[in-house]
Amino acid sequence: MKLASLKQGRDGKLVVVSNDLAWYADAGHIVATLQAALDDWDRLLPDLQNLATDLEHEMIPMRRFHEHDAAAPLPRAYQWADGSAYVNHVALVRQARGAEMPETFWHDPLMYQGGSDGFLGPRDAIPLADDSWGCDLEAEVVVVTGDVPMGASREEALAAVRLVGLTNDVSLRNLIPGELAKGFGFFQSKPASAFSPVFVTPESLGDWWRDGKLHRRLMVDLNGQPFGRAEAGVDMTFDFGTLIAHAAKTRKLGAGTIIGSGTVSNRDSDGGPGKSIAAGGVGYSCLAEVRTVETITGGAAVTPFLKAGDTVRIWAEDDKRHPIFGVIEQVVAAE
Amino acid sequence: MKLASLKQGRDGKLVVVSNDLAWYADAGHIVATLQAALDDWDRLLPDLQNLATDLEHEMIPMRRFHEHDAAAPLPRAYQWADGSAYVNHVALVRQARGAEMPETFWHDPLMYQGGSDGFLGPRDAIPLADDSWGCDLEAEVVVVTGDVPMGASREEALAAVRLVGLTNDVSLRNLIPGELAKGFGFFQSKPASAFSPVFVTPESLGDWWRDGKLHRRLMVDLNGQPFGRAEAGVDMTFDFGTLIAHAAKTRKLGAGTIIGSGTVSNRDSDGGPGKSIAAGGVGYSCLAEVRTVETITGGAAVTPFLKAGDTVRIWAEDDKRHPIFGVIEQVVAAE
Repeated sequence: MKLASLKQGRDGKLVVVSNDLAWYADAGHIVATLQAALDDWDRLLPDLQNLATDLEHEMIPMRRFHEHDAAAPLPRAYQWADGSAYVNHVALVRQARGAEMPETFWHDPLMYQGGSDGFLGPRDAIPLADDSWGCDLEAEVVVVTGDVPMGASREEALAAVRLVGLTNDVSLRNLIPGELAKGFGFFQSKPASAFSPVFVTPESLGDWWRDGKLHRRLMVDLNGQPFGRAEAGVDMTFDFGTLIAHAAKTRKLGAGTIIGSGTVSNRDSDGGPGKSIAAGGVGYSCLAEVRTVETITGGAAVTPFLKAGDTVRIWAEDDKRHPIFGVIEQVVAAE
Repeated sequence: MKLASLKQGRDGKLVVVSNDLAWYADAGHIVATLQAALDDWDRLLPDLQNLATDLEHEMIPMRRFHEHDAAAPLPRAYQWADGSAYVNHVALVRQARGAEMPETFWHDPLMYQGGSDGFLGPRDAIPLADDSWGCDLEAEVVVVTGDVPMGASREEALAAVRLVGLTNDVSLRNLIPGELAKGFGFFQSKPASAFSPVFVTPESLGDWWRDGKLHRRLMVDLNGQPFGRAEAGVDMTFDFGTLIAHAAKTRKLGAGTIIGSGTVSNRDSDGGPGKSIAAGGVGYSCLAEVRTVETITGGAAVTPFLKAGDTVRIWAEDDKRHPIFGVIEQVVAAE
């Protein structure tokens, strides 16, 4: 089952979307918003699934689904916690600045508390007030959880995964060093993230969802050129069950919590830093990583950060090359 | 006007509470929840204010207000961002561990993104799974904002303050060094915070709310003994307008954003670290601070962190010694 929120008010209007993303059916007679559905998931799920089945069979009134009419599936959320599960990415960034990465990073997940009071829709522009902030994309996989009790095991945490989707976790790289030096984590350096047009139940993903990971390539284009084709199921040191359990260690998590994988990143086949797609590699899921590789291999970063007018495209494909979650496609806009 | 949310479902039931906190009137015919009221504040405020006036004049059906029936005014929120505006507190903590505090800390606010998917009510127990985590209270002032545009000035930010209240920002001190060393800020070290039974409109606070600060003493008792009596309006280096503008520098803030002051802390009158109430000082608003002072003056921390059975009481008083926001009173409970 695929769910989306059409733009309407602060929380959108919940719709069920056909598998091919061509059609939608209004879910308003069942529940008004995705958050309300997550709040009462077990009771509402059968009705939503029946609606999805009827939609696939074209047995009910249906309308064309246009991704540009979609808000983020949760236009605002009560929690957005982003991990950094592709430790390869972290190791590279450390290597580039000559810093040792603690060995514990391979066992103890990194996670930060993100802002969740307002997200960007999949076609919304990225508002950027100042080019010098160093605007970057970060292509990631996300899951949405139901209620998770404090101290949940990895298995309990995995069982609480309700939906899977993608995000562009916009980052302002040049604000990060100053913020991290203050010791309190990210704040100004993490403006609103954008999410894929639809989120999908894990059951609908079949074999692509296993071991708490999404086993599909994460496609990233930058200004119309292929930029990243990393496998989301590869080199993910911490699966989503482990990430959710980490988040729930000292407190329960409320339904509708969004947990992110962190920037997807694959090691190069020769073990070195990843190559660009032009050079035969799988490319990158953020500009910071290519700049890091440039620093390691050439002494200095060459690729610039995003500026007004740049476009970012993020998606994942099924075996027929159709987008599974729809497409995040954003232009950077001077504010 | 004073607003509370009686425990009901995930978001509580909005009620208007009398100035003396003795009575309430159901606001359900106007709007169901406080978040919904904040989402449409300008339209709903006159009706809520009329209800409050009618309640004061005993012109409508009213019921006894019991603080133990209250959830946090926002039982869950889309954003909880906590500043550290009493820089004196930060300077003391640094001094205790022999670390220099950067001079910029006096000009650039510290702020962290907190978890907001579920808060504790004012009488809810503090669930603690492990004593060794070093559970601490932090008594703070909070404000709730309406929508704040990206790049808002301090004055615009102050105009967006809708409500004022108190929090106990529960912290797990012994988890903090490890988390901060990882560089991504707090996560496991900041479990659910508790909030005062009522939040109050700034207008109703009269002269106690001015210059973006609450000019009342923050009362803290620990196990029935006076522990803190610091003046919230004194030594607050960054007022709430400055804190909100800091939060909104690179992104807009959604209605219902809660901004915290950080632990309230006053310098001692002789300029040294603050004295306990028994020693004639104003005491402390968290255990970390008294432990810091003990370390500076005696070489080692003596006061233990919270353990199961300990009780914490946080409130502020009007001139007749009646609580303004009601009382946060929590017992620590082993989970």
